[in-house]
Amino acid sequence: MQIKHKTLFLTLIMLSCSLLLILWPHNRAALQSLYYKEVVRTKYVYTRPPPWSSSLPVIYAITPTYSRPVQKAELTRLAHTFLHVPNLHWIVVEDSNKTSPLVSHLLQSTRLNHTHLHVATPLKFKVRSGMKVKPPRGTLQRNLALQWLLQTYTANDSQQGVVYFADDDNTYSLQLFEEMRFTTKVSVWPVAFVGSLLYESPKVNSSGKVYGWRVLFDPQRPFAVDMAGFAVNLKLILTKPQASFKLTDVKPGYQESSLLSDLVSLSDLEPKASNCTKVLVWHTRTQNPLLRKNITGFADVIEEI
Amino acid sequence: MQIKHKTLFLTLIMLSCSLLLILWPHNRAALQSLYYKEVVRTKYVYTRPPPWSSSLPVIYAITPTYSRPVQKAELTRLAHTFLHVPNLHWIVVEDSNKTSPLVSHLLQSTRLNHTHLHVATPLKFKVRSGMKVKPPRGTLQRNLALQWLLQTYTANDSQQGVVYFADDDNTYSLQLFEEMRFTTKVSVWPVAFVGSLLYESPKVNSSGKVYGWRVLFDPQRPFAVDMAGFAVNLKLILTKPQASFKLTDVKPGYQESSLLSDLVSLSDLEPKASNCTKVLVWHTRTQNPLLRKNITGFADVIEEI
Repeated sequence: MQIKHKTLFLTLIMLSCSLLLILWPHNRAALQSLYYKEVVRTKYVYTRPPPWSSSLPVIYAITPTYSRPVQKAELTRLAHTFLHVPNLHWIVVEDSNKTSPLVSHLLQSTRLNHTHLHVATPLKFKVRSGMKVKPPRGTLQRNLALQWLLQTYTANDSQQGVVYFADDDNTYSLQLFEEMRFTTKVSVWPVAFVGSLLYESPKVNSSGKVYGWRVLFDPQRPFAVDMAGFAVNLKLILTKPQASFKLTDVKPGYQESSLLSDLVSLSDLEPKASNCTKVLVWHTRTQNPLLRKNITGFADVIEEI
Repeated sequence: MQIKHKTLFLTLIMLSCSLLLILWPHNRAALQSLYYKEVVRTKYVYTRPPPWSSSLPVIYAITPTYSRPVQKAELTRLAHTFLHVPNLHWIVVEDSNKTSPLVSHLLQSTRLNHTHLHVATPLKFKVRSGMKVKPPRGTLQRNLALQWLLQTYTANDSQQGVVYFADDDNTYSLQLFEEMRFTTKVSVWPVAFVGSLLYESPKVNSSGKVYGWRVLFDPQRPFAVDMAGFAVNLKLILTKPQASFKLTDVKPGYQESSLLSDLVSLSDLEPKASNCTKVLVWHTRTQNPLLRKNITGFADVIEEI
């Protein structure tokens, strides 16, 4: 009986210890996450982003944005996508003299890691109707985000990361972010609905090297890739502080090349998305809503739309 | 010593039982969810939807869809939104003679609860350029989804639910779904970018009752509300099996009224979104991409876009 007791006793000790060992560091988080899912999710708005991991390279998604009727809608659905991506830091740069309450509230309510910046594009560089050559959009905003990265991190930091220019009207598959996460220098992939084609793509040879561009518009560009079609290793950005998008003396379609020429050569490019045989990002464009203005009795009671 | 042993023994039994009781039904799921987050999230595509709850009313989101260049992009970002909504069952109805591999694969890869249906709109009801009066789109598809609900559930089921017509181009805030979840009969709210206005909205009096419509286009419609602006209790659908959208003899803008007139009267409507003072859904429209066709050397190597 005494032996039986002892055996049972030892078994129980081992069982308890095993349970404690297996479950302890996790079970609080696990239970919290469970209660969160059971209780909070049922009445709340945004979900939490996935838990931050110190071992996973951070994706710095740079989004230039400007005030327009569909701005909140666009940023809302982009946030819904980003909320599924682990270790994403959203750098939102408004084209304005100050940050707007609309974007501030939205960013805060998402609970995503984010940085909120602003810089106004001077009038002479704004796109106006009737312009022969349209100046590129979002240039100063993207450069400001690069400056923020240079001021916030140094090349010696242990922080691993990748920088991606994610405009607020595009559509992103979640797989795209995992394709770009472990970029060594600059990774590239196809983009749908650009340059009058169903998709543009880097040309990849049988050795898996990029040797040109499947594009209709000016294939002689050094990097004939859309803004949504590449990502840059954070360390590379930090070791090349002079690299930036050029605002003047840049031909249409050469924005991407103006940055990438500062960073890499063609042979450095890393094709992703199964050697550029899959479309994982779409250059969707949202129509401006057709609005009748100055109609009696139709003041906008709701302010934030 | 024997007593000490016994005490320790009893303590351990209690500790083990407590741990088992607290953690058992949950810990597998919790640990799986934990490992999932730590390991699988880093290399995969779609996140899991929130865990299913048997106590929470189900949202049946009915999405008619048709083949076009931006279809996969639209459904992808809509899935990203739905993946944040607890207890959502997605009913996708293709306007075609059979279900397409593109939509099938997409639905499966999301891991959302879903039903995949199809019904082709007859040619005479298809929208063609030059038509004076455009026939409504998605009518047969929405009706088929209602039929599926009638065949799948009965009014006596304990299953609580709400039915929402969620087109694939709109933008939905997550709060919208929690607003509609506990609909008694029919709930209503504002919709942005419809009827030439920044937003249309039900008019709500100081007692919180809907008494009319803040719309520019035909305010005399019985229910001057956009398809994205209302949700219907599942039981109400099940007790009114004759209720459906009408395809013929329906004036433009009367689709929603054709269903709702079968279900409720104005005084039954439940205003949501803080008594219709907030915009939680936007009738965004995605441009058709400008494509040049039949260009030599630009066959589409990538099939699914």
